[in-house]
Amino acid sequence: MSNTYKRIVLASRPTGAVTPDNFRLEEVPVPEIGEGEVLVRNHFLSLDPYMRGRMNEGKSYATPQPLGDVMIGGTVGEIVATKNPKYAVGDKVVGMFGWQEMGVTNGIGIQKVDTTHIPLSAYLGSVGMPGVTAWYGLNKIIQPKAGKTIVVSAASGAVGSVVGQLAKLQGCRVVGFAGGKDKCDYVVNELGFDACVDYKAAKDSKALYTMFKEATPDGVDGYFENVGGEILDTVLARMNAFGRIAICGMIAGYDGQPMPLKNPQLILVSRLTVEGFIVSEHMDVWPQALQELGTAVAQGKLKFRESVAQGLASAPEAFMGLLKGKNFGKQLVKLV
Amino acid sequence: MSNTYKRIVLASRPTGAVTPDNFRLEEVPVPEIGEGEVLVRNHFLSLDPYMRGRMNEGKSYATPQPLGDVMIGGTVGEIVATKNPKYAVGDKVVGMFGWQEMGVTNGIGIQKVDTTHIPLSAYLGSVGMPGVTAWYGLNKIIQPKAGKTIVVSAASGAVGSVVGQLAKLQGCRVVGFAGGKDKCDYVVNELGFDACVDYKAAKDSKALYTMFKEATPDGVDGYFENVGGEILDTVLARMNAFGRIAICGMIAGYDGQPMPLKNPQLILVSRLTVEGFIVSEHMDVWPQALQELGTAVAQGKLKFRESVAQGLASAPEAFMGLLKGKNFGKQLVKLV
Repeated sequence: MSNTYKRIVLASRPTGAVTPDNFRLEEVPVPEIGEGEVLVRNHFLSLDPYMRGRMNEGKSYATPQPLGDVMIGGTVGEIVATKNPKYAVGDKVVGMFGWQEMGVTNGIGIQKVDTTHIPLSAYLGSVGMPGVTAWYGLNKIIQPKAGKTIVVSAASGAVGSVVGQLAKLQGCRVVGFAGGKDKCDYVVNELGFDACVDYKAAKDSKALYTMFKEATPDGVDGYFENVGGEILDTVLARMNAFGRIAICGMIAGYDGQPMPLKNPQLILVSRLTVEGFIVSEHMDVWPQALQELGTAVAQGKLKFRESVAQGLASAPEAFMGLLKGKNFGKQLVKLV
Repeated sequence: MSNTYKRIVLASRPTGAVTPDNFRLEEVPVPEIGEGEVLVRNHFLSLDPYMRGRMNEGKSYATPQPLGDVMIGGTVGEIVATKNPKYAVGDKVVGMFGWQEMGVTNGIGIQKVDTTHIPLSAYLGSVGMPGVTAWYGLNKIIQPKAGKTIVVSAASGAVGSVVGQLAKLQGCRVVGFAGGKDKCDYVVNELGFDACVDYKAAKDSKALYTMFKEATPDGVDGYFENVGGEILDTVLARMNAFGRIAICGMIAGYDGQPMPLKNPQLILVSRLTVEGFIVSEHMDVWPQALQELGTAVAQGKLKFRESVAQGLASAPEAFMGLLKGKNFGKQLVKLV
């Protein structure tokens, strides 16, 4: 085993779009572990849109990420050294070690996971934070009922794909938005959505509305928002009375560009409930959600797809691609 | 008693702002009442912003008002003839007879009211639909807690004045928006709000934000929206995490002008809940709300102010004034 490992720190804050020089790759010595500690070798790093918000100085979900610190992020890996009786070498664990190949902890912040029926990487996707995000927004905010129409943007992504499949399992009509024919075909043919609107195929907002109207003949009862901008305007105009909208992400505005909502009066006209949420503030639901998601994945009822970048050095480019929708499914970085 | 009475019908739909020729005054014979019916002479007609929505053809809260029909509206009056054993001549009743001096009913749609401790006109204001609107949005959507900051727009109006006073009774810090120094002075000095922002005194949106920031040093926990537009943008930027917004009206956009929301991503950033509502869809809360509001008015804990226009023919002008914020307090038309 090498006595150094690699990590990526936040070198500077983006002004507008993220650029490669916002990151710096460092090589540092593998630390000695103390009594009660474990050393984890990370196998996969999760890349997620929320990381963009942490790179800003301004008000976002949470405290901005300090400059020079390792980029935040979820990881799955394996115990490679232990002085903690609760962990053995070879144990698989999920944690938040960030953009780095290794991490040390006294056991706080990691959880052992069972990879008998569920692949390790799924704990960063459908059976991890993105899955619980989908579960919370759908079940706690949208509260779907069989026969109702549920819509989700970024439908082929880590969160959107779970939202749609869970809603299908509950008997809903499910419509997605995705960018490009390949993603839309996947969403309908593989994930079982009833329809998917390729927003990239719409030449203007009117064309987008027409496509979406055809896909939602009975209007929209629940909407899970990952994107914001023009898609949100389009969906708002199709919402039925007493519809419910979970705002999970607004990736369209993460670089600071203006992203006004054209017709906020529709919230009143259609008596909508619109709620923003961050899944890490609802830890009470995680055990139930993870149990249900794990069962569904193990039984093959919840499919997922991954985009895997190779090696830590590829993380910045993969992350910039994620923000532009270039990934197809859950974006991971394979570290070993 | 004259054998005719006057009424106002919708003559044409507005294109943009309401104009006098959208209305037509008619004089019609007083009808004979049949078995089980009563004849009501209306004393006051209520003018309310929701009526603007009914004048349009497009999608609003409810079915558009048909052309040629009497304009919809709440009324209070007195039984002047009866063939219904449940009602005696002289009984005071609240109903929805619309913009007309008289009305006939078999008893459906009217309710007897007690004017011993509460003036008749208050049943169109603080102890009527506007009061219940305030009660519902505040208690059921905003759910205020003592010590928190609650904000309401159109603070001197029929709904806003009740929102603020109810929130004060619950121990909140209360801040209003109103147009002009007179209204703001009234809101603070008479209604007991902690502060009131005169939006007409702000030369631009930055100045408005600065004034509002000074009035809300601890941010905003709950917002009751009657107006929309720039004021909503301003309040959104001051919302605390997990804040709650009740959307009751967006009068700024009632004439169809664009009224975009500048930063919808704040719903996510601050994890807000935004909910539109129409009080007539929540009839289950009316008895409790009216009981509480009536008690508060009778005890002098809930003050109100009225703008009274004289005679049915003055209703169109008074209504156009209401839509421009020219009224000061609950807008009524006195019919007798």
